[in-house]
Amino acid sequence: MATTAATPMAGTAVPTMPAPIAMTMGEPAGIGIEIALKTWRRRSVCDLPPFYLIADPDHVRATLAALEKLDRSQRVRLAMTEITTPGETAGCFDQALPVFPQALAAMPEPGKLNKANAGAVLGAIEVAVAHIGAGQASAVVTNPIQKSVLYEAGFKHPGHTEFLAELCGGNHLPVMMLSCPDLKTVPVTIHMSLADAIAELSTEMIVERALITARALDRDLGFSPPRLAIAGLNPHAGESGALGRAEAAIIQPAIDQLRAHGIQVIGPLAADSMFHEAARRNYDAAICMYHDQALIPVKTLGFEYGINTTLGLPIVRTSPDHGTALDIAGQGRANCQSLTSAVAHAGLMARYRARAA
Amino acid sequence: MATTAATPMAGTAVPTMPAPIAMTMGEPAGIGIEIALKTWRRRSVCDLPPFYLIADPDHVRATLAALEKLDRSQRVRLAMTEITTPGETAGCFDQALPVFPQALAAMPEPGKLNKANAGAVLGAIEVAVAHIGAGQASAVVTNPIQKSVLYEAGFKHPGHTEFLAELCGGNHLPVMMLSCPDLKTVPVTIHMSLADAIAELSTEMIVERALITARALDRDLGFSPPRLAIAGLNPHAGESGALGRAEAAIIQPAIDQLRAHGIQVIGPLAADSMFHEAARRNYDAAICMYHDQALIPVKTLGFEYGINTTLGLPIVRTSPDHGTALDIAGQGRANCQSLTSAVAHAGLMARYRARAA
Repeated sequence: MATTAATPMAGTAVPTMPAPIAMTMGEPAGIGIEIALKTWRRRSVCDLPPFYLIADPDHVRATLAALEKLDRSQRVRLAMTEITTPGETAGCFDQALPVFPQALAAMPEPGKLNKANAGAVLGAIEVAVAHIGAGQASAVVTNPIQKSVLYEAGFKHPGHTEFLAELCGGNHLPVMMLSCPDLKTVPVTIHMSLADAIAELSTEMIVERALITARALDRDLGFSPPRLAIAGLNPHAGESGALGRAEAAIIQPAIDQLRAHGIQVIGPLAADSMFHEAARRNYDAAICMYHDQALIPVKTLGFEYGINTTLGLPIVRTSPDHGTALDIAGQGRANCQSLTSAVAHAGLMARYRARAA
Repeated sequence: MATTAATPMAGTAVPTMPAPIAMTMGEPAGIGIEIALKTWRRRSVCDLPPFYLIADPDHVRATLAALEKLDRSQRVRLAMTEITTPGETAGCFDQALPVFPQALAAMPEPGKLNKANAGAVLGAIEVAVAHIGAGQASAVVTNPIQKSVLYEAGFKHPGHTEFLAELCGGNHLPVMMLSCPDLKTVPVTIHMSLADAIAELSTEMIVERALITARALDRDLGFSPPRLAIAGLNPHAGESGALGRAEAAIIQPAIDQLRAHGIQVIGPLAADSMFHEAARRNYDAAICMYHDQALIPVKTLGFEYGINTTLGLPIVRTSPDHGTALDIAGQGRANCQSLTSAVAHAGLMARYRARAA
C-alpha cells in the first residue's frame, strides 16, 4: 500500500479537490526539500492531489541537482518550476514541482543549522496559512522544523502546532491525531512525563478532545457517524478498580458525557487488547490517555506510513511524524513515505471539508 | 504462520525432544479441554511435540462428543485415550490425545463455575510439576484458571505463576515474558496501577528481570549471545530530561549494570519507535517498564499467537495469554491458536534446556 488512504464508509463518494495544497519547506538543513521532490515524483503512482512547495527556488534547484547526481539511474526525473500564485499549481503540477518563492537568508548546508534562516522557515508557514485564508490553498502539509534553532532566533511558541493555532486566530484547541493506514489514535496528554500525564488527566480533557476528534472524523474524513474507542489508563482498564481508579473516576464520566452528546463510544477498553485487527473494526479512532499508548500501536503497525494530523483548527494541516533527520540530510537516502501519506491525507480532508462548507 | 516458532540464531541446531509436555486442565467450566483437543488435532500440521492432558477422562470424553456433534463436517477426527504414566505419551500421541487422570468432584457445566472442582484444578498443576520433577515431563503448559472461584475454595496465592513458583520450591523470581512470532517483551512491573508502576520501578527490578531474561534467551531459546532492548518510561525516553527523569535516574544505571555483567543491551529507547519491524531486528527481547508498554505491541502484532512464558523458574512453563472464556465455553467456537503456540514454544524451550543440562 503506497499511501495513507483513510477509509471512508462504503457508499460515500469522495468530493473533488478544491484549491491545491501548500507544503512548507521545514528546516532547510534537513530533509524537507529532498522528500518534497521525491513525493512529487510519486504524484501519479500515489494519485496525489496537486501541491506546491513554499521554499527558496535556488535551494530547491540545488537539492534537485544534488539528488540527480547521487542517483543517475532514476527513471522518473525530478523537475521544479517557480510559480507566482498558488493558482498556477494545477496547470504545471504534472510537469514539475511548483515552488512558491520564500527566500532564505543563506544557502543551507545539509545537516548544519543556521539561525539566519529561521525567519524564512517561519515565513513559509505564515504564507501557507495566508494562502488558505485567501482560498488559494485548501490545506497545509508542514515539513519538520528544528525547534532549537528557531528558539535561538527568538521563536516563542512551544511548537509548530501552537504557532499554526495562533496564525489561525481565535481560541482553538489543536488536537494531535496520529494515523497509519490501519489505525487512528488521539493522545489526550502529550509531551510531558508519564507521571505528569497521570496527574493532569481529567474528564474535561478527554471530552474536549473526543468531541473535536468526532467532529473531524465526520466532517473531514467521511466517517458518519464516527465511532470512538476510549482507552483505559491502567492495566486491564483498571480491572474493576483492583488495578486503578482512574477508569471509574475520570474516564467513565467522560464516556457518559460523550454519549449524552450523541457520540458512539466504547470503553474504557483494556489498552493491550484494543489495537489488534479484529478489535480495530469496532471503532474509527481511539482516544488514548498518554503519548506512548497512542504512538506505540500506530508506529508498530505502520512506522513509515505514520502521519500527524492537527484537528480542531479552522485549517486542514498534516505533517510527517518524523523529524528533520539532520544526520542523513543531503545524502539522497531520506524516505518520503510519511510525507507522501501526509499529502494524500490532507487532500482527502480538504475535499471532504470543501463539500461540508 | 501456524505456530509461535521462536527464531534461534542461524546455524544453531535445535536439540531433540526429551520427555513429553504436561498440559493442565485449567478451569473446567472454561474452554481448556476444547482447545486442548483442537490443539492435538493440529499436531501434524503444526509439528507439535508430544503432550498429554491432565484432566478428568470423563470430562474430556464428554467435551469431545459435544465438539463432534457441533461440527459434523470436520475432516480430521478428534480422539483421546487414557494413560497411566506420562511415558505412554510418545506411543499413543499420534492416534489420540493422551489423558492422565485427574478426577473432578462434579461434571462441569460450560460457563458455570463450581468451587467443588477447585481441588482438581490445582491438583492438575501439582501433578504436572511433580512429573517434571521426576523427569517424566519436560515442561508444563497451563490452561487458564479462574482465580475468583479458586479463592472461594481457599486458594492463597496471587495467581497461577506464584503457585507454580512455590511448587518448584526454593527462592525463585518468576518473570513473565509475552511473545508472538515477531516480538518478545518482559514487563518489569505488572499487575498494579500505572501510578504504582511508576512509583515502584527501580534499577534493581530492571536488572534482576533483564538478567533472568538474558539467561533464558541464551539457555532455553538459542539466542547466544542474547541482545536486550530497554524501553524508556516517558515519551521520547524522557527527551534528555525534558519529559522525565526516570531514564537518567533509574533506567540508565540499570543498563550500565547489565553491561558490567557482559549483557548486550541498547536503551533507554523511545517506546513508540522500538517495536516496528526494522527496530525489532536490533534485539531479541524488549524489557518494558509497565504492563501495557509490553502488552500493547505483542497483542497488536500477534493477538491470536500471543503466549505467556514464565522465566526464572527451574521448570519450563508456558500458557496462552487469554482467559477462561466462560462466555463461549461449550459452543465449539474457541480458538486454539494461542494454546498451540504455547505448546510449540514449550517444546522448543524444553529441547534447548535438555541440551544445556
